[in-house]
Amino acid sequence: MLNPTTFVPLKIIASGIALPAHKVLSVDLDKQLNKPSGYVEKRSGIRWRYHASNSDSQAELAAEAIHDALIRHHIDPSTVDALICASAIPVQALPCSAAHILAHSKLSSGIACFDINASCVSYLSALQVAGGLLATHQYQRIAIVSADIASRGIDWDHEESSLIFGDGAACTLVERGDGKSGILAFRLETYPEGLDLCEIRAGGTRCNPRSGMEPSDFLFHMKGKPLFKMASAMVEDFMHKILSQAGVSLTQIDTVVPHQASHLSLEHMRKRLGVTAEQLVDIYATRGNQVAASIPSALHDAIMTDRFYGKSHVMLVGTAAGLALSAMVLVP
Amino acid sequence: MLNPTTFVPLKIIASGIALPAHKVLSVDLDKQLNKPSGYVEKRSGIRWRYHASNSDSQAELAAEAIHDALIRHHIDPSTVDALICASAIPVQALPCSAAHILAHSKLSSGIACFDINASCVSYLSALQVAGGLLATHQYQRIAIVSADIASRGIDWDHEESSLIFGDGAACTLVERGDGKSGILAFRLETYPEGLDLCEIRAGGTRCNPRSGMEPSDFLFHMKGKPLFKMASAMVEDFMHKILSQAGVSLTQIDTVVPHQASHLSLEHMRKRLGVTAEQLVDIYATRGNQVAASIPSALHDAIMTDRFYGKSHVMLVGTAAGLALSAMVLVP
Repeated sequence: MLNPTTFVPLKIIASGIALPAHKVLSVDLDKQLNKPSGYVEKRSGIRWRYHASNSDSQAELAAEAIHDALIRHHIDPSTVDALICASAIPVQALPCSAAHILAHSKLSSGIACFDINASCVSYLSALQVAGGLLATHQYQRIAIVSADIASRGIDWDHEESSLIFGDGAACTLVERGDGKSGILAFRLETYPEGLDLCEIRAGGTRCNPRSGMEPSDFLFHMKGKPLFKMASAMVEDFMHKILSQAGVSLTQIDTVVPHQASHLSLEHMRKRLGVTAEQLVDIYATRGNQVAASIPSALHDAIMTDRFYGKSHVMLVGTAAGLALSAMVLVP
Repeated sequence: MLNPTTFVPLKIIASGIALPAHKVLSVDLDKQLNKPSGYVEKRSGIRWRYHASNSDSQAELAAEAIHDALIRHHIDPSTVDALICASAIPVQALPCSAAHILAHSKLSSGIACFDINASCVSYLSALQVAGGLLATHQYQRIAIVSADIASRGIDWDHEESSLIFGDGAACTLVERGDGKSGILAFRLETYPEGLDLCEIRAGGTRCNPRSGMEPSDFLFHMKGKPLFKMASAMVEDFMHKILSQAGVSLTQIDTVVPHQASHLSLEHMRKRLGVTAEQLVDIYATRGNQVAASIPSALHDAIMTDRFYGKSHVMLVGTAAGLALSAMVLVP
């Protein structure tokens, strides 16, 4: 049970993003997939997304996002004392992704490194965890980075999911701050009844050469309709709970930063949940679903477009593989 | 920079473990590997370890450990409001392992679930994170479970590493407590210079069907000598730092719960670091290296053998892939 009166001090002091060089236009995918011109954009709601080459490194992409955040805000890399990787899919089975990212970054060797994984909503849990670590004076300045290369797992034979994913990375640097900024409310709910609605089965102990695996186990398996049905049936009640916990109404939320899951999910936020176009941060048309990097990338966009600092309340919200629902109300 | 005066309230209220059914005796491995009788035990320091069958599930093993902790301490599963999986190797690439474990456990659907990964020392970071979350009143009772099935990645052509791994799971339930028990000091240092000394390259974006992979990428790659050399060169100084941070001397530590990395690493603790046989919890001969499940399994052993509750100070300590060093001084 969460305490509705709890406020966790946390100040986002910097943000940055990184994108792979290769921009994949939907009109180019039309040709590649032998579809009429305009088909992919109409079907996916995406004009372009970025896909890494097969030799691009997830750890390097993450390190670029860290560097972008450091440079934009003139922060000395040696002042960061912990690195949390909050991606959905790891670099490799062992060791953790944060160690790989540290190797490519300008952060100091020897700092604390670990991964937090709550699938596509990992970034929210990482912020919550960072808040606790800063409150208990374990660290002074934490870098949280999410980097996902979803393109490496796209099933090109599955039209619905193949069109929506884009790659990317985003980093935020956080401190305890002066106590005025922070987390007003946080929720994470996981319903494993939806475990197989979105998954990549390989990568761990379940599907490997000894337990048995096949090439398709390395690809995203998305049951789009039941996934959307289950998530959309729960998200309205979930939104009521997080708002009630924060003690605010939706109209008091200046900016809503949702997971850029799909065209349909963003439409659902607008039409069914009543999030206005002014409130909603929507970068989907030029990024696609960047998995765990979506929310922090959209948050960076909110910061760059003056929809974060100086505002009263900002909500981060998303549904994720698991099936998980997570939301956070921040006082910027 | 950590604050040496910081104390994080945390009470371990229950612990439990789980082991796969199949006990692998070193004398049986002698035969299997065409070695003289006694060879494997002499070489590895292990009499037996447990290996999962190829169809055993990591998530089920983890759920068994949770169940063991709940049953031993007569705890109602519905009172647990968060589940952290602190394993080194995941169930699969997506979604997170905690969601898979929740599906097999008696814990309530809908609770918060996420993974924390700091390789073999994941459990220590999970405890630190739990301390922060409990201090900021995010949750009331957190289950932390580590489950690793290392046998699925054993390279049987690499004698040194093939003999040491055992499978298993361990769970602890934690609360904020009355403020007297808690974390006196914590350190985690990651040195990616040692990134390739212990790894499993497949499982994520680095080695997959698109970026290129081969069967050996699914196996542990351990460079035993340089790994031990790098870790042992740093661990003495690291021990001084954690003790100084906690403001205690080694003689004031009643019980030392080390990662059961290898026979050599435990010998090093005794001979070079001066940890006495009375202090040291050593379950290596009948478990082997259980990866991230080693430290919480040894902690459970300390609890069961009256070496935890009622003591002044207990240290958890280990080196891990990354290369990472981590230690924690607990007031039980």
